[in-house]
Amino acid sequence: MSDIQDSKESLSETLDQVVSILEKHRLVENLVHKQEMPKHDLVESLVHRQNQFELQNILNDLHPADVAHILEALPLDERLYLWDLVKADRDGDILLEVSDAVRQTLIADMDSDELIAAAEQLDTDELADLAPDLPKDVLQELMDSLDALNRERLQSALSYPEDTVGSLMDFDIVTVRENVTIEVALRYLRRLETLPDHTDKIFVVSRHDVVQGLLPLSSMLVNEPELKIESVMAEDAVLFHPEDDAEEAAKAFERYDLISAPVVDHNNKLVGRLTVDEVMDYIREEAEADMLSMAGLREEEDFFSTVWKSVQNRWAWLAVNLMTALLASRVIGLFEGSIGKVVALAALMPIVAGIGGNSGNQTTTMIVRGLALGQISGSNMQTQISKELGVALINGLIWGGVLGFITYWLYGDYRLSLVMTAAITLNLMLAALMGVMIPLVMNKFGRDPAVGSSVLITAMTDSGGFFIFLGLATIFLL
Amino acid sequence: MSDIQDSKESLSETLDQVVSILEKHRLVENLVHKQEMPKHDLVESLVHRQNQFELQNILNDLHPADVAHILEALPLDERLYLWDLVKADRDGDILLEVSDAVRQTLIADMDSDELIAAAEQLDTDELADLAPDLPKDVLQELMDSLDALNRERLQSALSYPEDTVGSLMDFDIVTVRENVTIEVALRYLRRLETLPDHTDKIFVVSRHDVVQGLLPLSSMLVNEPELKIESVMAEDAVLFHPEDDAEEAAKAFERYDLISAPVVDHNNKLVGRLTVDEVMDYIREEAEADMLSMAGLREEEDFFSTVWKSVQNRWAWLAVNLMTALLASRVIGLFEGSIGKVVALAALMPIVAGIGGNSGNQTTTMIVRGLALGQISGSNMQTQISKELGVALINGLIWGGVLGFITYWLYGDYRLSLVMTAAITLNLMLAALMGVMIPLVMNKFGRDPAVGSSVLITAMTDSGGFFIFLGLATIFLL
Repeated sequence: MSDIQDSKESLSETLDQVVSILEKHRLVENLVHKQEMPKHDLVESLVHRQNQFELQNILNDLHPADVAHILEALPLDERLYLWDLVKADRDGDILLEVSDAVRQTLIADMDSDELIAAAEQLDTDELADLAPDLPKDVLQELMDSLDALNRERLQSALSYPEDTVGSLMDFDIVTVRENVTIEVALRYLRRLETLPDHTDKIFVVSRHDVVQGLLPLSSMLVNEPELKIESVMAEDAVLFHPEDDAEEAAKAFERYDLISAPVVDHNNKLVGRLTVDEVMDYIREEAEADMLSMAGLREEEDFFSTVWKSVQNRWAWLAVNLMTALLASRVIGLFEGSIGKVVALAALMPIVAGIGGNSGNQTTTMIVRGLALGQISGSNMQTQISKELGVALINGLIWGGVLGFITYWLYGDYRLSLVMTAAITLNLMLAALMGVMIPLVMNKFGRDPAVGSSVLITAMTDSGGFFIFLGLATIFLL
Repeated sequence: MSDIQDSKESLSETLDQVVSILEKHRLVENLVHKQEMPKHDLVESLVHRQNQFELQNILNDLHPADVAHILEALPLDERLYLWDLVKADRDGDILLEVSDAVRQTLIADMDSDELIAAAEQLDTDELADLAPDLPKDVLQELMDSLDALNRERLQSALSYPEDTVGSLMDFDIVTVRENVTIEVALRYLRRLETLPDHTDKIFVVSRHDVVQGLLPLSSMLVNEPELKIESVMAEDAVLFHPEDDAEEAAKAFERYDLISAPVVDHNNKLVGRLTVDEVMDYIREEAEADMLSMAGLREEEDFFSTVWKSVQNRWAWLAVNLMTALLASRVIGLFEGSIGKVVALAALMPIVAGIGGNSGNQTTTMIVRGLALGQISGSNMQTQISKELGVALINGLIWGGVLGFITYWLYGDYRLSLVMTAAITLNLMLAALMGVMIPLVMNKFGRDPAVGSSVLITAMTDSGGFFIFLGLATIFLL
């Protein structure tokens, strides 16, 4: 009796294995580098050929996604060394699986012929995913090699912006007509020999490819073969249009637990298919991009990219932060006279600014989430502002009170401690107001409120906090 | 010829419709409240009954996930009003779809009998999802009502920690034996009448439920019915164990584009099934929880929860931040003498601290991402630290130089501007070192590096930045 194999079991072990072979390889290369062994001997050496053979064996047994994972985890030189060992007929599938940044490094390492050979193994929708990274001449040559239908599909797929259903859909469609029996449809499927991945249903269409209904494979299996398809198909379905927002489509996939769904034009004519694997990749990529952009990083930064590339990737954000820090610094500058008289103000002011920033970011996060979940409408914005102001007032009195007490204990000046309490309360309320307003305004102007809200909030609560605290101190202490 | 219906088309329109009916309802209620209309008249009033009827009609036509979406988008009182209008036989499915925070508000509104009726419509795995939120006596009663097999399943599902495959798996398993023909298997499926959702393959097992292979529905359809199942089944499969990490399982689902996969014990005996819809929900929930916890919010906060609940949800984070702000403040306190002599230091020091914090958070984000993608191993940690220190040095010289220039322009003191440049460079390097070390150390001790890293980094770069800047100033300027 055969025992089933778990094909994922050992990915991290495999990575360790690859890394250790590469280390042996580097050891030998170092000898060449130190000129203790001639280059010629290395290439010919038994160790070298044995390593190569071993690596090739490992790579050939792996799923393309696993090869991609290993390539992602290696520094550039070892990544390219391994990439050369991958069988040419798997290049295309692997290029689809790696991240954008790593893909660019791999493509830069291939010549036109290799790229064309790799791309020719792909479906039209996969080619569309790869196209933006390919050199112009390679893409042109590929276009020319396609038949009219596929060329048109490629061009239309490329014409849809990145965050639309059109850019995610594929063309692996199996259709039947509604007036045949299940028996006939089954015979038709049997002739296809294989069904496209993620075919959980086939699309029932009219003569002119207008979608009439959906027929789950499972209902073909459980219903009597003599039944007509129109009597068992579902007419109530989730349909998408190529120009639909991909994020909305992803939510619909989650909400209705879809595996595949037809993409239709405005006459309900079938133009493509959206599948759960593309949707899941999209969700993951969006979550990653959000996380990176919250820290002002673009998604293109490869983990192993050079120092100089990283500097370029990060400078814009630092420049923005520098501007806001300068602004806050000038606000303090206005009150240098006061600080000169009461030096304690200098030590206390960062507390007021800092706690305002944290509280504002909490509010913004709640609002961004509410926007993403569709919980925010014109009618409840007022409620949200009141609620957040309430939270800020309570937190301000509690934490402002605590800090007022600590201030009195440190400096023995009750007026200073009252100023501290008042400044913290007011800055938390400013943070609450801005924390609600900023993401809502950004959203209104069609910007992603998750990106940049945090900088704006912090800029407000820093400058605002310094101004409120030093202003109150100047009025009441001097 | 029938035209297919897009069942998702109008969710946001439906929400608007519900909100506008609820507004009419509120208008009438306000009249009662102002005692311009007796309560009795309201309940009996035509408007009221008409509204209720209209809402019930809308709700009955909606998918449970859409009802859940609408409930999420409403403030507590209107949410509960609507919840009462939902047909009792749909309560269970809807409770499964809402978020934890909203589910608690709905369950709090139901009595034991309603809860038991709702729970009895659910599968065992769904019941397990709901169980933690149910009152103890209701859960006990439900347990008693189950047969032995399902009780055992429920207990085992409840025994797995939240982030394991065991907590996500279901028990909707269709199995066949390997020595029958496809024909026989097809006849068996036909007798089932319906297949469980997300059945893209059936599991081939031995007499003792040990998994032998997997049989995709599509290969049942395209192969000749006379073939034996063992000759067409796949023996190379992705298997999971109930105690596997859910995050790893989610990655495997993405990597291998799975729709369903068997969950087995250590003898490869089938114990459950993992499906892509559960995995996708898990990914989305994790991404949301990460985003919230980065701002120090627990996931339980309902968007419409009370001020007091929100205060409780946020206080711990503010307390931590307050401690770190106090620490930074005491560092400044050490140098009050220097600030008293050169007041400009007070205005400049937040810049040094702020830019360090931003840069450190960029580094941490890269490292957290590298950890999540498995790109970080012992061998390349050294490389990462060197790279980040390099990036910090270049950024420090560039931005420190710019700020040195601005400082000179503002204060006309070249020594102050040199101290500024040096302090920024050193603080960026401190930020880089900490930005790499903190997430790695947190990861080493089994903590989620995405949570809390940011506070720690900011604490280091604030206190460190103040210390470096004021320290250098004290040495070189006084």
